[in-house]
Amino acid sequence: MPVKEVAAKIASMEIRGALRIAIAAAKAMEQEILDGASYDELVRAGDTLKDARPTAVSLPNAINYVLHIFDKHKSDDPSVARSLIIADVSDFIAGLESSLEKIAEIGSNLVEEGDVILTICNSNTVASILKRAWEKGKRFKVYACETRPRFQGHITYNDLASAGVDVTLIVDSAAYYTMVHKSVTKAFVGADTVYVNGDVVNKIGTSQVALMAKHAGVELIVCTETIKFSPYSVSGELVEIEERDQKEVWDKEAKIFNPAFDITEKEHINMIVTEVGIIPPEAAYQVLKEKFGWSLE
Amino acid sequence: MPVKEVAAKIASMEIRGALRIAIAAAKAMEQEILDGASYDELVRAGDTLKDARPTAVSLPNAINYVLHIFDKHKSDDPSVARSLIIADVSDFIAGLESSLEKIAEIGSNLVEEGDVILTICNSNTVASILKRAWEKGKRFKVYACETRPRFQGHITYNDLASAGVDVTLIVDSAAYYTMVHKSVTKAFVGADTVYVNGDVVNKIGTSQVALMAKHAGVELIVCTETIKFSPYSVSGELVEIEERDQKEVWDKEAKIFNPAFDITEKEHINMIVTEVGIIPPEAAYQVLKEKFGWSLE
Amino acid sequence: MPVKEVAAKIASMEIRGALRIAIAAAKAMEQEILDGASYDELVRAGDTLKDARPTAVSLPNAINYVLHIFDKHKSDDPSVARSLIIADVSDFIAGLESSLEKIAEIGSNLVEEGDVILTICNSNTVASILKRAWEKGKRFKVYACETRPRFQGHITYNDLASAGVDVTLIVDSAAYYTMVHKSVTKAFVGADTVYVNGDVVNKIGTSQVALMAKHAGVELIVCTETIKFSPYSVSGELVEIEERDQKEVWDKEAKIFNPAFDITEKEHINMIVTEVGIIPPEAAYQVLKEKFGWSLE
Amino acid sequence: MPVKEVAAKIASMEIRGALRIAIAAAKAMEQEILDGASYDELVRAGDTLKDARPTAVSLPNAINYVLHIFDKHKSDDPSVARSLIIADVSDFIAGLESSLEKIAEIGSNLVEEGDVILTICNSNTVASILKRAWEKGKRFKVYACETRPRFQGHITYNDLASAGVDVTLIVDSAAYYTMVHKSVTKAFVGADTVYVNGDVVNKIGTSQVALMAKHAGVELIVCTETIKFSPYSVSGELVEIEERDQKEVWDKEAKIFNPAFDITEKEHINMIVTEVGIIPPEAAYQVLKEKFGWSLE
Amino acid sequence: MPVKEVAAKIASMEIRGALRIAIAAAKAMEQEILDGASYDELVRAGDTLKDARPTAVSLPNAINYVLHIFDKHKSDDPSVARSLIIADVSDFIAGLESSLEKIAEIGSNLVEEGDVILTICNSNTVASILKRAWEKGKRFKVYACETRPRFQGHITYNDLASAGVDVTLIVDSAAYYTMVHKSVTKAFVGADTVYVNGDVVNKIGTSQVALMAKHAGVELIVCTETIKFSPYSVSGELVEIEERDQKEVWDKEAKIFNPAFDITEKEHINMIVTEVGIIPPEAAYQVLKEKFGWSLE
Amino acid sequence: MPVKEVAAKIASMEIRGALRIAIAAAKAMEQEILDGASYDELVRAGDTLKDARPTAVSLPNAINYVLHIFDKHKSDDPSVARSLIIADVSDFIAGLESSLEKIAEIGSNLVEEGDVILTICNSNTVASILKRAWEKGKRFKVYACETRPRFQGHITYNDLASAGVDVTLIVDSAAYYTMVHKSVTKAFVGADTVYVNGDVVNKIGTSQVALMAKHAGVELIVCTETIKFSPYSVSGELVEIEERDQKEVWDKEAKIFNPAFDITEKEHINMIVTEVGIIPPEAAYQVLKEKFGWSLE
Repeated sequence: MPVKEVAAKIASMEIRGALRIAIAAAKAMEQEILDGASYDELVRAGDTLKDARPTAVSLPNAINYVLHIFDKHKSDDPSVARSLIIADVSDFIAGLESSLEKIAEIGSNLVEEGDVILTICNSNTVASILKRAWEKGKRFKVYACETRPRFQGHITYNDLASAGVDVTLIVDSAAYYTMVHKSVTKAFVGADTVYVNGDVVNKIGTSQVALMAKHAGVELIVCTETIKFSPYSVSGELVEIEERDQKEVWDKEAKIFNPAFDITEKEHINMIVTEVGIIPPEAAYQVLKEKFGWSLE
Repeated sequence: MPVKEVAAKIASMEIRGALRIAIAAAKAMEQEILDGASYDELVRAGDTLKDARPTAVSLPNAINYVLHIFDKHKSDDPSVARSLIIADVSDFIAGLESSLEKIAEIGSNLVEEGDVILTICNSNTVASILKRAWEKGKRFKVYACETRPRFQGHITYNDLASAGVDVTLIVDSAAYYTMVHKSVTKAFVGADTVYVNGDVVNKIGTSQVALMAKHAGVELIVCTETIKFSPYSVSGELVEIEERDQKEVWDKEAKIFNPAFDITEKEHINMIVTEVGIIPPEAAYQVLKEKFGWSLE
Repeated sequence: MPVKEVAAKIASMEIRGALRIAIAAAKAMEQEILDGASYDELVRAGDTLKDARPTAVSLPNAINYVLHIFDKHKSDDPSVARSLIIADVSDFIAGLESSLEKIAEIGSNLVEEGDVILTICNSNTVASILKRAWEKGKRFKVYACETRPRFQGHITYNDLASAGVDVTLIVDSAAYYTMVHKSVTKAFVGADTVYVNGDVVNKIGTSQVALMAKHAGVELIVCTETIKFSPYSVSGELVEIEERDQKEVWDKEAKIFNPAFDITEKEHINMIVTEVGIIPPEAAYQVLKEKFGWSLE
Repeated sequence: MPVKEVAAKIASMEIRGALRIAIAAAKAMEQEILDGASYDELVRAGDTLKDARPTAVSLPNAINYVLHIFDKHKSDDPSVARSLIIADVSDFIAGLESSLEKIAEIGSNLVEEGDVILTICNSNTVASILKRAWEKGKRFKVYACETRPRFQGHITYNDLASAGVDVTLIVDSAAYYTMVHKSVTKAFVGADTVYVNGDVVNKIGTSQVALMAKHAGVELIVCTETIKFSPYSVSGELVEIEERDQKEVWDKEAKIFNPAFDITEKEHINMIVTEVGIIPPEAAYQVLKEKFGWSLE
Repeated sequence: MPVKEVAAKIASMEIRGALRIAIAAAKAMEQEILDGASYDELVRAGDTLKDARPTAVSLPNAINYVLHIFDKHKSDDPSVARSLIIADVSDFIAGLESSLEKIAEIGSNLVEEGDVILTICNSNTVASILKRAWEKGKRFKVYACETRPRFQGHITYNDLASAGVDVTLIVDSAAYYTMVHKSVTKAFVGADTVYVNGDVVNKIGTSQVALMAKHAGVELIVCTETIKFSPYSVSGELVEIEERDQKEVWDKEAKIFNPAFDITEKEHINMIVTEVGIIPPEAAYQVLKEKFGWSLE
Repeated sequence: MPVKEVAAKIASMEIRGALRIAIAAAKAMEQEILDGASYDELVRAGDTLKDARPTAVSLPNAINYVLHIFDKHKSDDPSVARSLIIADVSDFIAGLESSLEKIAEIGSNLVEEGDVILTICNSNTVASILKRAWEKGKRFKVYACETRPRFQGHITYNDLASAGVDVTLIVDSAAYYTMVHKSVTKAFVGADTVYVNGDVVNKIGTSQVALMAKHAGVELIVCTETIKFSPYSVSGELVEIEERDQKEVWDKEAKIFNPAFDITEKEHINMIVTEVGIIPPEAAYQVLKEKFGWSLE
């Protein structure tokens, strides 16, 4: 699919989800390379794609990584450079495509027989982990927060229940009472963006679940692909927290504050499960350097 | 209104709200006394009323207090005892009737110019305080949690907005983000029941608001009539947390846990505003002894 | 039994246990009164008894209370004063004798079906509560810390196991791991002395159990007769923490620090169960004033 | 001394210090009574005195207590009422005059051999306690914060050093480092006002010393006469924190924020030492009711 | 010694201790290489060794590292590869053998004159550090927890006392009281396994010592060779906490829960002293990558 | 400038400030290389420089890095080695020279419209960040602690006020009150030394500001060049906290404790802004390894 078409589909949200966007963008960039684009042309293609969705970090991450590959091989013998680039980009895309599978496998190892698990919103990584653990024969309970205002907890409920997982829905306000009185042992949450210092941007409500977990002796486990780690945060460019339409909250003329995300402090996070393994949140800095070849110098 | 009629209206929830129930019950007991009931008849009348709503603590509190008054005067000269009893019961009812007004006045003193206040659910005491403070010319901001599953936050919003108060609605999951990023200074919440040790039973979500407040440097102020202080808690008889119909949460066949209340730990409460003044939560023991003449001995 | 004999038995530890000491001393004082002792003679009798065991607060508490009764009636008509005193002292002794029973009843109300309870040392009040709750048909689990150096946890184990309670022994070092990984919901502990500010002196290890409970979201419930509340603490005279024989710890020539008690901070205590009902720890001040007529003025 | 003269000296700060002001005002009121003032005249005299210094709580407390005594005896036989009033007022003044002595005695019991004690500002109660403990032969170390902007710590240093106490001065910013690295065991601080819920208003810097103490495992002990407990706080009328002249901070044209006091949260206070004994901060409510006969009803 | 013999001695616990096992296994692998084993033969030898003790992480770590060295040189010129491999393996073994010495040196730098140090269990690294610091002339106090159920604290006591160190034994339950009342400044503990996120598995009781240390303002320092860092934890394969024979706890028919280890949260750890230097616990991820060439990709 | 002259100027504090010292030392070393010094001569030159100021970590860091560069190229072809070394050293010096500019740029991105920022002492990095943010048109408030005993806060005040920034001075004791009552959102502080585990040595008072920030929900941001990261801390060689002249505190014969620095715990630090980007404090280990080629092996 040509760059412009992919950009259009990202803009129209026909292609959505941080991982799917990254894969689509990387493939569009790969096609440009196969079509013989120069570095400058590739940069321009990347800019077109980036403009399609300015807020999701996985999009510029994927594009910048392809440019980084291109750049890395520029001093190689021209006769082999192109095939090396194509091989590396192909590996990168394959890595993206297998990341959810790897996270499911690693994360499912953390689930123990008899666990009582709380989750919020609808996260592909978390759902994959819980379903994988259930398939392996582990038996545990899940409490899913309904996740106002858009009720993504309903999707989680249906997804897990269809897979046979023992899942119960609660309102978001019942999270702390459930932790304490239903003996919750672990909380699994996804991530929208991971900052270089280990703080995590995710669906509104996550930061308070994390605070409660710390206070109730519950482990807080973030599950996310490394494509969501933000190199921009290294320069202090943080995500602007989106304020969404108030109609999502109440269908009435009223003054409503509707932030879509919040920021979970690293001190409340026990670990992050990624496709390259489990890390403490503070290793975000190292992953950014190793994985994306990022450097300010 | 005769006892049976009042009991029926309490049972059918025609008479509802902890304070209104207490007043109706006290008046029905007063009528019995005016009609010349003996102590034993009065006890039976009280039992009929108590059976109408077994969970609200204000109902037995009001009845037991009337019985306590009756008992206190039994050694008085019969020629004056009856009129003394009637006078005391009348005072008690007047006290109940004026308690909301007193709380509004006391609590409004706590509101400072420029405050940013968060509240949850719909509490008569909190709403009265905020409106009174606004009437006095103080200017401040209020964030009202919508309070799933029954959206009592909408009632709070309408009530405050009609009075001109600068109120903004948020989803319950945005409470912590709002506290931190909108510089909330105080949180005012109501109470369903106050335990002897200072713990407070209130609408589901209150205990997590209180935890967040403590973590974000926000004062947590509980506002309630003393008629909701539980003498039963002195004997370890705690409130059974009601689990309500799951249809309130999701109109679908699903496994849903829907607790109506939770318990806020005394350590997270800065003070309780009552009609007899401000107290630390741990003074609940003293109020119970002084106000209701309660004793295990 | 005459005062000297009682004093001797307390000194030799033939009579031991805070409550039994208090009852024996109160009865010896009662006998003095029946034998016609004057106030000054009574004071001397009390001094003899107090000298028998200088550290236990229940002993002077009982004696002082009898003196307080005597003093209270000195302005009464001499013809009735003596019988009033005898009646009051008799009531006081009866109250002491029934206090364990009352605590068992009140405390057992706090135990909920499915609870997982941790305890340390061997406390009559805690054991009575747990056995009473089990007799009422409630089913729960108990983890008993072995309580080095003297293994009083073995006594608790045997006592509860004989009564059919589902009890498991752990080493003291496993307390936190057990709280977190066995989903402990409540910790019940006894008390040696309760200070006026709500801090509690109890067997070494209690203060760290309380700290862990706070951190793991576990309720910490102290269970004790009010005869152990210390009026001396009102004047700043605190208990000197006894350092016991090092042979209790290791039968070897070695440098050993063997404190018998520690001090649990009031902030880590949810409530105290007494024979006069449940109180917050901070109500110790009020109980001291009401119960023992204590005053510095 | 006549009322007007006393009022003038309070206004000019010739008479200052919370306790001295209370004594002077009570004596002026006593004189009015001796001179045959009616209740209404007494009220007016009280108003004159109160106007002399609107912010110190000890002033209205003393006046209101004298009025309360007057009022209490109004139904007594007129032939004895006057002498009863005079006796009660005299007792009240004697109590005020002996309160510092009592606090010194009680508080000095809390000082243990080998203690390392931190203090801030210059508090009569704290200095008296430390000097009394030293006189009793206890040996300990004191670190005195210099207490910017007015360096009251220098007065404390001189006072303690003159009495032979081992005292060391530190800057206010070194408080936490000193606590951790010099193994501070206790912090003693005074109070300007005690609120009904146990929060304490005192010299700027006290609230951060209290926070650090909690974090470093140091006991925080407030030492104050009960005449500083605020009945106004029961109605939510809190102290307006005075902002003082910026010249105290920097002798230069600059934007300076110079609050004179701050508010220490009750959770950070282990106990309050008063002339009526040691109490938990939450017993402020009870002291206000018992001591000052205060009631909103 | 041939592989089978080493495996047998590891299985029979003739060779025990994480470091000694690692060295023995590495030497057996080295012998295989010297004997001309192919990569596949080496893998099989490694599997034989690993099966000898499935739970200790140092064993597979040592084997995998030797395999990693072998693998790293497979593209080298065959004429030099073998000698390069042998040199690298030899370096690796030398590194293991010198690690305790290096830790003693580094850790002893952290001990300051006048420190009061608490430790639990018997750790070679901790004992080496404390003895080294004492040899350097530093003077400090040590409190050693007896470490039920197996009293390894007695070994620590004897080891330190023999070296002249000022050591005192305490029961495990006295840890918190000792921290607060004996002004403990640092706690040194060993490790059984270090997880990738910085959490540390160690002898039961360590996690509660760490919690208390955080609450009492005491530094918690973990001392361990990097051979105990777990690459398996990267994939979520955590250590199964061993439950040991109940006879260790009580020689009686009884229900006993006897976990051998617990997990200390990274938030409670100030630093980890390793032979490659001091690191924050969160750098476990980096050490695993650099030291063991570990990668999931 | 020759080495001896630079050393003299560092010793006399003509050259001061961690960054300026590092640049001067690196340039002196560069001159030695240009003058044809051998490695041994270079080591001796470095020792001369290091002796000039034994406590500042930036000095040995700069020298060691130049030696590391020299060492790194020793196996290069002699014909190019020298120019490679000179180029690398030149880059290093350029990096030092531009580091403040980079930190200003990165840090200013973190400042948000409407922020209320607290700072302590006078830090070049913090002042540069705040002035840069103001230049970019962001509007916010700054509270500057006066920073006893040397009032460096006055310098900060003048610097910011001259640049038009809305800055207010407070005494150090007003920090917590200001955080809570003026809704402080972020605290920016400098660093004297950063330890390998992420703990930060800085001006006395910083550690208590950090503790208060954590408690009041305020972000604590450390701003510093990486030249202040201490490789010595990797070996456990920590900074000896300087005790300065007591005359700085009080111009009087008195016992005064005047520590110049304190240590902020990594748990209280949200992030560190460096010239190589933002990092979590725990990444200090990684920066030390990457930036300075540091290794214990």
